Amino acid sequence: MPIIPLISDSVPGPMTVDPTRPTPPPDVRMRGFSRRVTVADALRCLDERLAPQPSAQAVSLADAGGRVLARDMQSLVDVPGFDRAMMDGFAVQAADTLGASSYNRLPLTIVGQVLPGESFCGAVAAGQAVRIMTGAPVPSGADAVLPAEKVEIENDRLLATDEVSPGKHIGRRGEDIVARDMVLKRGRYLRPQDLGVLSSIGVSEVAVVCRPRVRIVITGDELLPPGTPPRGNQIADANSPMLTSLVTRDGGEAINPGIVPDDRDAIRSALHDDADVILISGGSSVGQEDHAPTLLATHGQLMVHGIAMRPSSPAGFGKLGHRWVFLLPGNPVSCLCAYDFFAGRAIRRLAGRSKDWPYRTINAPLKRKLVSVVGRVDYARVKLVDGQVEPLAIGGASILTSTTRADGFVVIPGDSEGYAQGTQVQVYLYE
Amino acid sequence: MPIIPLISDSVPGPMTVDPTRPTPPPDVRMRGFSRRVTVADALRCLDERLAPQPSAQAVSLADAGGRVLARDMQSLVDVPGFDRAMMDGFAVQAADTLGASSYNRLPLTIVGQVLPGESFCGAVAAGQAVRIMTGAPVPSGADAVLPAEKVEIENDRLLATDEVSPGKHIGRRGEDIVARDMVLKRGRYLRPQDLGVLSSIGVSEVAVVCRPRVRIVITGDELLPPGTPPRGNQIADANSPMLTSLVTRDGGEAINPGIVPDDRDAIRSALHDDADVILISGGSSVGQEDHAPTLLATHGQLMVHGIAMRPSSPAGFGKLGHRWVFLLPGNPVSCLCAYDFFAGRAIRRLAGRSKDWPYRTINAPLKRKLVSVVGRVDYARVKLVDGQVEPLAIGGASILTSTTRADGFVVIPGDSEGYAQGTQVQVYLYE
Repeated sequence: MPIIPLISDSVPGPMTVDPTRPTPPPDVRMRGFSRRVTVADALRCLDERLAPQPSAQAVSLADAGGRVLARDMQSLVDVPGFDRAMMDGFAVQAADTLGASSYNRLPLTIVGQVLPGESFCGAVAAGQAVRIMTGAPVPSGADAVLPAEKVEIENDRLLATDEVSPGKHIGRRGEDIVARDMVLKRGRYLRPQDLGVLSSIGVSEVAVVCRPRVRIVITGDELLPPGTPPRGNQIADANSPMLTSLVTRDGGEAINPGIVPDDRDAIRSALHDDADVILISGGSSVGQEDHAPTLLATHGQLMVHGIAMRPSSPAGFGKLGHRWVFLLPGNPVSCLCAYDFFAGRAIRRLAGRSKDWPYRTINAPLKRKLVSVVGRVDYARVKLVDGQVEPLAIGGASILTSTTRADGFVVIPGDSEGYAQGTQVQVYLYE
Repeated sequence: MPIIPLISDSVPGPMTVDPTRPTPPPDVRMRGFSRRVTVADALRCLDERLAPQPSAQAVSLADAGGRVLARDMQSLVDVPGFDRAMMDGFAVQAADTLGASSYNRLPLTIVGQVLPGESFCGAVAAGQAVRIMTGAPVPSGADAVLPAEKVEIENDRLLATDEVSPGKHIGRRGEDIVARDMVLKRGRYLRPQDLGVLSSIGVSEVAVVCRPRVRIVITGDELLPPGTPPRGNQIADANSPMLTSLVTRDGGEAINPGIVPDDRDAIRSALHDDADVILISGGSSVGQEDHAPTLLATHGQLMVHGIAMRPSSPAGFGKLGHRWVFLLPGNPVSCLCAYDFFAGRAIRRLAGRSKDWPYRTINAPLKRKLVSVVGRVDYARVKLVDGQVEPLAIGGASILTSTTRADGFVVIPGDSEGYAQGTQVQVYLYE
């Protein structure tokens, strides 16, 4: 299997940089990748090694939305903890209403009332009724609630105009949750209603998987800090605001995003940051100024470098100690693409989420053909026009506006030469 | 049109509470809704009156992900602002490489180098080459970049082994954005890559639509604060953690969620809170303890009250001054359903987002029939089992765990009696 890119500590794969080899002269080092690993192999390499972070933290319910449970949650209590009225009306003995109708109104004596949170002192005997509100505990003796719209009131008695069966309009103790029920399992991505359920079993704080801390390292001596008006031969860093937003979307915590000087010492130091994931944008290829891949190979493990895809073929990843390191090309479209295929997947998984893309998808026919090359995965930006999928003409990896003009993207797999006009394709919608 | 529920100030609709009518005795007031408005009419009422909030605030790029642009964004600059190298290699005059191949290696003199952020002092003349890195400005005189892998180096000269055409591997000034381009339009939901584009045109702060401030008012004297272990005849409030998370999801800012005593004064005061939207959970129906609808009708405008749907038929909404007020039933499933149909839609719209549900959908066949009633919209919780849609047996609006055991829900429209086993249905996935 000559193209399998994965390396173990003992058997370095063919496309990794061998740290024992002497540094070749610049002209050789600049010669590009001798071969590229397939996207499928790169993903397999990643998936085999990824699991949710083992570290957990306690957060309040108010902050737990969108986090991932670190422990199974079992209820210690019944919910509700008592039989309660599910309608406004009267707690009665159902047998007393047997045969009641608007033509046969049956009288009951109103002996009191019970409001939510209160309790009725006494019991409901035959022939009696207690006025009750939704949510109030059903008095002992009563076995049904006769809804308010099925009675007529005459001073201290009511006339039942309909019958109710035993148990009717009563929410039984434990009907939602019974003590010792497993309410939510470890690994659960917490939905709004999950927080409601946790609240109802008396949980005010919950253990969730820690967010992976993601250090965003931007290299490129032509770069100005984000949002700086471009001047001279410099451009503003577009990747750190984009990556910060992507990392947040995927459940990570972006730390210290910013530009690092494009030299070995600065990048080596950034690679050793206190973080769970390190994203390095720029200098990911095999040129003489591309320090990150050789540093990663020297100090850690460069698992994959050079991927058969367009854009972002000079992407790669590996590990340095416990840290995952992702090499993202500096061109912003490549950076987005490499993030979406690899880094985002890892961050979602470390955060305990599904590794799958968070994008909604739709299927629609191609307005014109979409050409690719066998052996390479393409990430093609498209627009939706009148229910059809229109590939954007601009293919350059440096044209970030191609991803803002696009409504989404189509992935053309490695075994395809592309799709003919009219082919139904799946579009991942940017959102 | 006797069932149109909408009221204007002059012509109250039939199912609204008439504030001029004397308060009827409890037995009459408890009699339920005389008629219910359709979901379609309620949505139309809402949609006609909703628009993004006019107020804007400035946020830094780092905080702008997921916010909505309040103004059109036009670029004042070209991006990039100079012609730049798109490959590592040599800036040359393309004509000098004409006919070059590995059998016809053409020599050029290396006269210097230019790195990203720098500039080359001088010009590239015929027969000359300047070593250049990706992102560096192309020196004057040069009109192409000869990639590093297409040269051999011999001391201070190179041998071109391939030809390049004029313009090759050069990113032209303005190829991404030209000054005066409209980059992003007002109303845009900001994606990660949008932040990159804004950064690249020199924008570090952006005007976004203010988040609607949403006051969450929980009523019910049987309720304990969220996360309190239930005791006696009391249960913990499940709705405020759930609503807080829903509001956040939909782009609102949840303020001061908590329990308010179930009396007219406390609720009247809460209705006058400094907020854009007020959600009142509990007491939304027509019982004698249901204060919110009459208060809203008295002090503001109760537009819709009582909706032909299950669950959450006792829901309603209206306005009090500039505030939108939503009456949500206290039963947690009803509360979730009424939020999702009406309040969430309003909050998303006020926040400048799409009013549509944020849920992903899938289509799959029903594992068993799903029964409804013509004239009523049903919100049926379902599980996905082996690619089929299985309705959950538990229908009670008080059983919140029915929404945590479910994978999503199916909406059965008002003109349907339900669906037979095997029918392909659309499932909205809870996430």
